Amino acid sequence: MMAFMDENFLLNTETAKKLFHEYAKDCPIIDYHCHLSPKEIWEDIHFENITQVWLGGDHYKWRLMRCAGVDEKYITGDASDFEKFQKWAEVLGKGIGNPLYHWSHLELQRFFDWHGALSAKTAEEVWNHVNAKLKDPSFSARGLILRSNVDTICTTDDPVDSLEYHEKLAKDTSFPVTVIPAWRPDKATNIEKETWNAYINQLACVAEIEINSFEALKKAIRSRMDFFDAHNCKLSDHGLNYVVYAPAGDEEIEAIVSKRRGGGKLTEDEVAKFKYAFMFFLAGEYHARDWTMQLHYGCRRDNNLTMFSRLGPDTGYDCINNYTPADQAAAFLGACERANALPRTILYSLNPADNEMIDTICGCFQSSEAVSKIQHGSAWWFNDHFKGMTDQLTSLANLGYLAGFVGMLTDSRSFLSYPRHEYFRRILCRLLGEWVEDGRYPDDMELLGEIVKGICYQNAHDYFRFASKKL
Amino acid sequence: MMAFMDENFLLNTETAKKLFHEYAKDCPIIDYHCHLSPKEIWEDIHFENITQVWLGGDHYKWRLMRCAGVDEKYITGDASDFEKFQKWAEVLGKGIGNPLYHWSHLELQRFFDWHGALSAKTAEEVWNHVNAKLKDPSFSARGLILRSNVDTICTTDDPVDSLEYHEKLAKDTSFPVTVIPAWRPDKATNIEKETWNAYINQLACVAEIEINSFEALKKAIRSRMDFFDAHNCKLSDHGLNYVVYAPAGDEEIEAIVSKRRGGGKLTEDEVAKFKYAFMFFLAGEYHARDWTMQLHYGCRRDNNLTMFSRLGPDTGYDCINNYTPADQAAAFLGACERANALPRTILYSLNPADNEMIDTICGCFQSSEAVSKIQHGSAWWFNDHFKGMTDQLTSLANLGYLAGFVGMLTDSRSFLSYPRHEYFRRILCRLLGEWVEDGRYPDDMELLGEIVKGICYQNAHDYFRFASKKL
Amino acid sequence: MMAFMDENFLLNTETAKKLFHEYAKDCPIIDYHCHLSPKEIWEDIHFENITQVWLGGDHYKWRLMRCAGVDEKYITGDASDFEKFQKWAEVLGKGIGNPLYHWSHLELQRFFDWHGALSAKTAEEVWNHVNAKLKDPSFSARGLILRSNVDTICTTDDPVDSLEYHEKLAKDTSFPVTVIPAWRPDKATNIEKETWNAYINQLACVAEIEINSFEALKKAIRSRMDFFDAHNCKLSDHGLNYVVYAPAGDEEIEAIVSKRRGGGKLTEDEVAKFKYAFMFFLAGEYHARDWTMQLHYGCRRDNNLTMFSRLGPDTGYDCINNYTPADQAAAFLGACERANALPRTILYSLNPADNEMIDTICGCFQSSEAVSKIQHGSAWWFNDHFKGMTDQLTSLANLGYLAGFVGMLTDSRSFLSYPRHEYFRRILCRLLGEWVEDGRYPDDMELLGEIVKGICYQNAHDYFRFASKKL
Repeated sequence: MMAFMDENFLLNTETAKKLFHEYAKDCPIIDYHCHLSPKEIWEDIHFENITQVWLGGDHYKWRLMRCAGVDEKYITGDASDFEKFQKWAEVLGKGIGNPLYHWSHLELQRFFDWHGALSAKTAEEVWNHVNAKLKDPSFSARGLILRSNVDTICTTDDPVDSLEYHEKLAKDTSFPVTVIPAWRPDKATNIEKETWNAYINQLACVAEIEINSFEALKKAIRSRMDFFDAHNCKLSDHGLNYVVYAPAGDEEIEAIVSKRRGGGKLTEDEVAKFKYAFMFFLAGEYHARDWTMQLHYGCRRDNNLTMFSRLGPDTGYDCINNYTPADQAAAFLGACERANALPRTILYSLNPADNEMIDTICGCFQSSEAVSKIQHGSAWWFNDHFKGMTDQLTSLANLGYLAGFVGMLTDSRSFLSYPRHEYFRRILCRLLGEWVEDGRYPDDMELLGEIVKGICYQNAHDYFRFASKKL
Repeated sequence: MMAFMDENFLLNTETAKKLFHEYAKDCPIIDYHCHLSPKEIWEDIHFENITQVWLGGDHYKWRLMRCAGVDEKYITGDASDFEKFQKWAEVLGKGIGNPLYHWSHLELQRFFDWHGALSAKTAEEVWNHVNAKLKDPSFSARGLILRSNVDTICTTDDPVDSLEYHEKLAKDTSFPVTVIPAWRPDKATNIEKETWNAYINQLACVAEIEINSFEALKKAIRSRMDFFDAHNCKLSDHGLNYVVYAPAGDEEIEAIVSKRRGGGKLTEDEVAKFKYAFMFFLAGEYHARDWTMQLHYGCRRDNNLTMFSRLGPDTGYDCINNYTPADQAAAFLGACERANALPRTILYSLNPADNEMIDTICGCFQSSEAVSKIQHGSAWWFNDHFKGMTDQLTSLANLGYLAGFVGMLTDSRSFLSYPRHEYFRRILCRLLGEWVEDGRYPDDMELLGEIVKGICYQNAHDYFRFASKKL
Repeated sequence: MMAFMDENFLLNTETAKKLFHEYAKDCPIIDYHCHLSPKEIWEDIHFENITQVWLGGDHYKWRLMRCAGVDEKYITGDASDFEKFQKWAEVLGKGIGNPLYHWSHLELQRFFDWHGALSAKTAEEVWNHVNAKLKDPSFSARGLILRSNVDTICTTDDPVDSLEYHEKLAKDTSFPVTVIPAWRPDKATNIEKETWNAYINQLACVAEIEINSFEALKKAIRSRMDFFDAHNCKLSDHGLNYVVYAPAGDEEIEAIVSKRRGGGKLTEDEVAKFKYAFMFFLAGEYHARDWTMQLHYGCRRDNNLTMFSRLGPDTGYDCINNYTPADQAAAFLGACERANALPRTILYSLNPADNEMIDTICGCFQSSEAVSKIQHGSAWWFNDHFKGMTDQLTSLANLGYLAGFVGMLTDSRSFLSYPRHEYFRRILCRLLGEWVEDGRYPDDMELLGEIVKGICYQNAHDYFRFASKKL
């Protein structure tokens, strides 16, 4: 029996142990997609207690508590911080098989040097232990980042954002971590939303361009992209229901934009045509600027309207959508490629049943512009666990070139999430170790070490073309 | 090498053995969904030979024999019972990897104390051994149930059913097992079927309400639900192609019902609108009565028309349907939730590629009304095997709260199927044992034992809110 | 740790070793579906160097090189053969987890007796070693086939093919391998393609029948089928986007054919109706001739138009299509069955998420005409690896009768691909070994050996009803 989550957690072969401890563990972290607040990093915020840092905004944890039948009072309601933590400890203590069990314990170990098992029985001990540690000034936002050996952080930013905190962070030579924006234009893309016109007005204002046409919208977007580019932006990111392919003529698109700007309601067909035209335009702009395009799709959001009206979006009420037509995804990338306007692209679908489909789509659009120019993104969100990551890695290895993979990201809103990189690295080393010790690949530590270091750090470094602050 | 199907069958770690033998094995069975005949239980029927009890109505076994190329004569035809059994033994003997191999041998072991391997070579031995045992009066329907430590049985009953045998069983204090009806209104739901009007006439007759409108249909249904409720019904069950979301106005639904009652043929759109309206109505009624709603979907039935015309439905000619839109399932539950009319619900899809989708849908509609109010049902039908159950448990653990799972059911037509609960429990304990011995969860027998006993018995007991006959 | 790819490669239990070495290894190969050129077999071609034999036409290898960012110059471009091989060795050396790693090393071992690990470091050694061997006359096309213990080869042939090389091979008593054609009428099926009319003209010419109607098309096709039948053809093969069910009346089909023959452009609906009518007709003809029908579906082809215009089809730019409606596949087979015109059929979908769906469809149409008359084809193309084959075998065993499986095929364009049969056999024996040593099936070598030999050779022999040349 392996010990519970000790230094060899998940490393079930000698090869895995060697790969993790000698090659993976000490690689710096490039967290190329997360939802941290640059303002909070700039302000170097502190936390009073573990409930604030763990349960303040983490919809993963809220969701598990709801699954366990906990009353909302103890989740987002008015119970005390200690009561909330107690409920959480009780639920997590029986949360066998859930990735939160591992994430939470890795966080307790790495940040707070607590190595027990959290449950109802140990809740009070952990509450006191962690809260005492949090009093130390080194447990600030920046302190947590520094402890985690982070090299680069890409936040997620709206085109209208002023990037003022990114500007400040870039100039702050006392903080050695590169923090750069990533471009997420979902609000401009989602023309079907009621709030679209108001958002476009805001964009017009920020870009100082009147937007009454698709041409003008593109001009405003280009202007904001230049602004982001000047702030070292290197990635875009999109949250899509699915990847749309719905070609239409320029005039048709202009008519759609005009109708919507005039307050009209669009048909589903018009929405699809706009989205495709807009995404096609953006892809070309990314390619021209040497940015990477991230497509996150296969999600149905805000399913519980009662709770949406109480808590808003991103509060734990989203699910996998299984309408993710390969046909349209391949046609979209094909159209970009045909126009010589396909940027480096990372595809993430929320549906694990799409793994193999995605890897085969990627394989159709590779080129010598980059190693694995089109990437299958690391197991996303609901798949970010032992099985999800193992399956994504296996599918990628079977159908593509695993050694070229850009690896892990946190996708997180929390300063404590960096051990997810460790979790990923352990799973990667375990998988490679099993293959080697099963006689499926030679026990060649030189090649294996190079592959592991590539996936943990070097590939992302080379692929995204960041200028590291440390250099 | 582990011994063939001995007392430690599937228990490949010490933890698994302990969990099974000390916590799981002796839990009573709550079989909350099956297709047993209450009449046969009441009459306490006996079987003359193993062919009657095994091959008389089991479309799983028929199907495997057909896959092996056996002539229908030896399946549902006029061959002798011994000839049929011989063919079955020959096929099963080479049936490596099929769950029938394990089900059948567990049945031979538990009921008949025969511990060999059935094949062409041993067919005659088994035929004689089992038939001798079957002569014993204790091998009646009730005897088989009692041997299996069954606490509660929920049969599957049509709204027009008189429930006369349930009434008799409820009054029979000599039989300590709770046998209660479950409500399955498929015939009322399937408005597209030729037989719908005739069925509605029958319903009208039983409910003593003329049904010429949707309002009247609802009134009749409510009346029958009250009748079922008075007979301790606590669950409904639906067999659906997929979960439909197709909202329409009241008048539109009335027009559809009126058209169909008048003999008209409905469009696909009209059928969908009726089904959604009817299901939405039923969900609210279940919620009001504190019943659980079971949705079985993702099935295409009666694909072989030649055999359907010879043998009728449920004879082994159904398949997985992969049209199971998450979009509509989530929208249906969302609409019920929005109307404060969402009952406790169990979702079962026949397509194992839907596991993760289902778990994420469940997670959107939890509440403190119950632990895991919305449940991902145990691996159903074609998934009821080692891999299917392991995958369902893993997905549930990854994406929800495994410790709140209501666990196994037989879904069976046979009095010999209870060892499927044992099969499930062994697989559950194996999975948990592997996680513990891999260092992924603490070796804490108090918590583990509580989780195992919960999934094997206590959760179902609490969730369904049965009044046990034994108390 | 198991040794790297030695004689016990993948055989991780004693049972697996015994099954492979004593039962599987020496079975002759029936390669019932491949893309070898009968002309090249007849001419008994030789290869100058390993680049010609490995990289000349293998889109699997090209694709992996592109994923690794290799410039097209070194793939299909004008780099020297040695430069291309060096690039390939570098990529493969780091190709952990990709089936090409195993295929390539099995080929180096079995044909060239080289047992190292190919990588940048060993590229030159392998280049010299293999090229020296290739000089030996026994390394011709026929020599490679004979070394591989091949009994029967079915090529893939167009209805207009003259089959002249098949005729020559059939008469050549010096070559003891049965080489027969298989019927692949995709060009006649794909009425939506621009080239359809030209192809139909060619067909008309070869069949000496004017084709101005569906009736005439059927007559021409029947005439060509008789010709193929006279050349011992026993299988057909279809590459389909998905299995279509779109019934229409005879007149409607005639109108569609007439419109298209007149140069008209068809609607999607018309295309579907033609395809269904044509496939239904063909299925009946196959049944009448005792041929097996193979349906390969779930593929989206030629996604990269830039590369398509440079290199043409089958050059590494295809992907999985996830539109594979069970509904239509089951309805198509059902309609054939209803008309008593369903041939022995093998279903292959490119999407591994379809495994269970396919096995349950197969189960609906079995009969005593053959053991497992409707088969789930071996893991195809993108699934032809350890996990893909394990998953296909497991699904088949869970949902059907594994012992009746017709087993492996190469689907290859290369004379070196026969070790894929060995790879499959090792995976099969490993899986059975794990089940046996886990106590899930008795350690009965008589039954297990029969099952293994059946899947490796005997089942295909019995199912396809070939007349072996050796007899």
